[in-house]
Amino acid sequence: MTTKSESGSSSHAGDSRLAGILGRRSIRLYTDQSVSESLVNDILRAAMTAPSAGNQQPWHFIVIRDRAVLDAVPTFHPYAGMIRKASVAILVCGDERLEKFKGYWVQDCSTAAENILLAIHLLGLGGVWLGIYPGADRIKGCAELFHLPTGVTPLCLIPFGYPAEVKGPEDRFRTDRIHQNVWG
Amino acid sequence: MTTKSESGSSSHAGDSRLAGILGRRSIRLYTDQSVSESLVNDILRAAMTAPSAGNQQPWHFIVIRDRAVLDAVPTFHPYAGMIRKASVAILVCGDERLEKFKGYWVQDCSTAAENILLAIHLLGLGGVWLGIYPGADRIKGCAELFHLPTGVTPLCLIPFGYPAEVKGPEDRFRTDRIHQNVWG
Repeated sequence: MTTKSESGSSSHAGDSRLAGILGRRSIRLYTDQSVSESLVNDILRAAMTAPSAGNQQPWHFIVIRDRAVLDAVPTFHPYAGMIRKASVAILVCGDERLEKFKGYWVQDCSTAAENILLAIHLLGLGGVWLGIYPGADRIKGCAELFHLPTGVTPLCLIPFGYPAEVKGPEDRFRTDRIHQNVWG
Repeated sequence: MTTKSESGSSSHAGDSRLAGILGRRSIRLYTDQSVSESLVNDILRAAMTAPSAGNQQPWHFIVIRDRAVLDAVPTFHPYAGMIRKASVAILVCGDERLEKFKGYWVQDCSTAAENILLAIHLLGLGGVWLGIYPGADRIKGCAELFHLPTGVTPLCLIPFGYPAEVKGPEDRFRTDRIHQNVWG
């Protein structure tokens, strides 16, 4: 039942109903066109639809458009150079004070962040996940730059915009990572 | 630009291009119809398309169809009763031995797990995320039942199937979780 994807660049592109997932790639180059507030809110709505432990939704999102704030990120993050060309980014944070089941916020906020990346792609935009947690220097840099309160930890930062690079789907399917019933 | 979703049950259902994300719900009731191997592989292809730190893809997936194995899960997991009616489940595991950047496997495997849940929904199926990590008893139960080697940690278990319950989208958008430029 494997069918050609809508993007059509691979014979192993998977079921076309999954094209929105299978076509997402990390996009690090953006045009000057700014992203509207309503699109950003659509992306945040997708983020907040993610599943979370006990449906506790222990997340916060900082929408960053201030040029000086965006440009300060590479002073503490070694892979954030592309943010100087992005007009907007979203910082995904976990709030341990909101957790009913302790220890799940990283998973909860990661599902929200993946929804953000997929929503960006589905809306014709492009973005990239910049890892923050558990890097101590990056966490400290974010806490200072974004004035985070105690108990709130930055998970990742996602710069995005209208894409200025085109990437086709990449098939990462590996049968050696699939096991039946038990590991052995 | 907020438009009515394809499912159409809410006036705040968001951009219709995001219906595949916004319509996903936790489904715990399944019919007797089994899920084909090709659909399971499509779901795993979606999982493996997820972003990961350094694109290291530190994940493994165990596809469980053995009735005795499925039925053993509730002996160590208090919220897994629905698995007795599921014909298939996927255990998502992280492999620290595959990590180039240490400490990111929980995030990487959570993005893969969210892709699994979204793919299940997009294919007309239904499933639910059962948390395993960081619960010590659940990790131990999985390690024994699935014969996991040292260095491999179970993150979550996702039973799924053809849905025997219908749930509309739930709008979880909260403006109090959105901040501009900095927290304050």
